[in-house]
Parts: sequence; structure tokens; C-alpha cells
Amino acid sequence: MPKNLTLRRARADDLSAIINMLADDALGASREVVADLVHGDYVEAFAAIDTDPNQYLAVAEDGEGIVGCLQLSFIPGLSRRGMWRGQIESVRIHSRARGEGYGQVLFEWAIEQCRRKGCGLVQLTTDKSRPDALRFYERLGFVPSYEGMKLGL
Amino acid sequence: MPKNLTLRRARADDLSAIINMLADDALGASREVVADLVHGDYVEAFAAIDTDPNQYLAVAEDGEGIVGCLQLSFIPGLSRRGMWRGQIESVRIHSRARGEGYGQVLFEWAIEQCRRKGCGLVQLTTDKSRPDALRFYERLGFVPSYEGMKLGL
Repeated sequence: MPKNLTLRRARADDLSAIINMLADDALGASREVVADLVHGDYVEAFAAIDTDPNQYLAVAEDGEGIVGCLQLSFIPGLSRRGMWRGQIESVRIHSRARGEGYGQVLFEWAIEQCRRKGCGLVQLTTDKSRPDALRFYERLGFVPSYEGMKLGL
Repeated sequence: MPKNLTLRRARADDLSAIINMLADDALGASREVVADLVHGDYVEAFAAIDTDPNQYLAVAEDGEGIVGCLQLSFIPGLSRRGMWRGQIESVRIHSRARGEGYGQVLFEWAIEQCRRKGCGLVQLTTDKSRPDALRFYERLGFVPSYEGMKLGL
């Protein structure tokens, strides 16, 4: 069980650390722009997330810095008698901290945030090319009962 | 190709028609409350959707009334260089109007809304017990490259 892990809302000055984590990944490497100066597209996206009360970009920090991130989206809906959903996207654990149980702590915390917000379920999609991630989510109780479909524009 | 189909943002006085469509479905029948007076949970959920600029509950109407609905959620994110996602949930076509191409018109319209909002992709999940829905989405260009996972709270 990791010690001294702090979970909190991300701030603008965490952006560089977060983008580095997003890029440090087989799928993310070709999708992100890593530079000394944070690209304006990320700054703009961060502002959109940060000013939306139904978005929560979270980071996990230990004594050495940021070790993980994820984004929670709280989505109101009519289905299932007006149930709110919590959705989790963009989960990353820093390469120096993998295999130490940080992911589980981050997820248990995220699920608890969804419960506090009054959500009736938590949902996420995971790339079928990441079997380890699928098993991790199944251990947490997630059930792969849906197909996750994407259409690029 | 259906004629005289109007697509527009849902209003509070459409709620009863929408809930009837959500319930008129193998999976939805046990999940929804259908009554002459719309249950307060739906009224509250509608207000949460209607006041959120990143939610768009849409209805399709023909000369006889409401024939379809879906909910669009626009989700800001850092991944993929600060890309916005459009997400589609709670899609229903009225039983009297199935097989007439209304679903395709509704989806093409929804995808166009995502494009106008500047989204880089459109995503949805579909229950694995609905193979017809999966084929419908594949014909529209959606790729089932992700597992869609849910955890009930």
C-alpha cells in the first residue's frame, strides 16, 4: 500500500507533468506534444476542464512529485430514473511508480468521488490492446458488458 | 429517407414522451418509472442536463410527435493534444418509427453537432446484448476497439 500519497484537483502548473505522463505510453507517444513550454492547446483544454463543475482532473502526488492522473466526468442523464454517471478517462501512472499499487489507490479514491457526487454507476472504456488494464479494472469490479466504439472526425 | 423530421433540443414538456421511449425497450422496461405525472427524479435530471452547456438532450419529431431521442455530452480533455470528445448516450427510436431510417438521420445529425463543437472523435458504448445496435453503429463508421466497462454503485 503506497504511503504519503496525496490526491487533489490538478492545477495549471501541473500541466507539464501530466502531459509527460500522457505521452509516456505506447498509445500516447504519437498523440501528444511534449515541449519545455506547454502547448497552447493543452492550456486551453485545461481551462475548459477546470471551469466545468462536472469535470475533475485529479493528480496523485508522493514525496517526489506527481505520480498519477485521471479525469472524472460527472454526466447527468434521464435513463435509469435520472441517474448520474461517473466516467473515468485519461488514467496514467508515472513509469517510476508502476506496480506499487498507486493505480488501485487512485481508482478507489475516484470511485468514492463518484459515490459522493450521487452517481449510480461508474463507467470507462479501455483499449482492447491493453489486456493488463482490462484485468486491473475487472479486479476493481468493473464488468466489460459493453462495446466501446469510437469514430474519428 | 424520412421526411418532415425536425431535430431540436428537448424541452421540459417533452419529458413524458422521452421517458416512455426509454422504458419501451427490453433493457429499459425494468429501469424506468412510467406514470401520468413525470417522476420528480426525471424533472431534476432534466434540469441538470438543460442547464449544462456541455449537455444536449435532443429529440426528433415528425408530424405525429416525438419519434426519437439521444443525449450528447461534450467532454473536454487533455489527451490527444487537448481534444474534445462527443459522447452519445440514451438513444431511442419510438416503436412506431423503427426500420424507417430515422436512427440514421438522428445519428448523422448528432455527429454533425460534434463536428461543429470541434470534437476530434465521437464515442459511445453499446450493450453487448444488442447485436443489431452494434451493426448499426459499425455501418456509421464506429469501430469497437474498446471494452466498455461499468461498475454499479
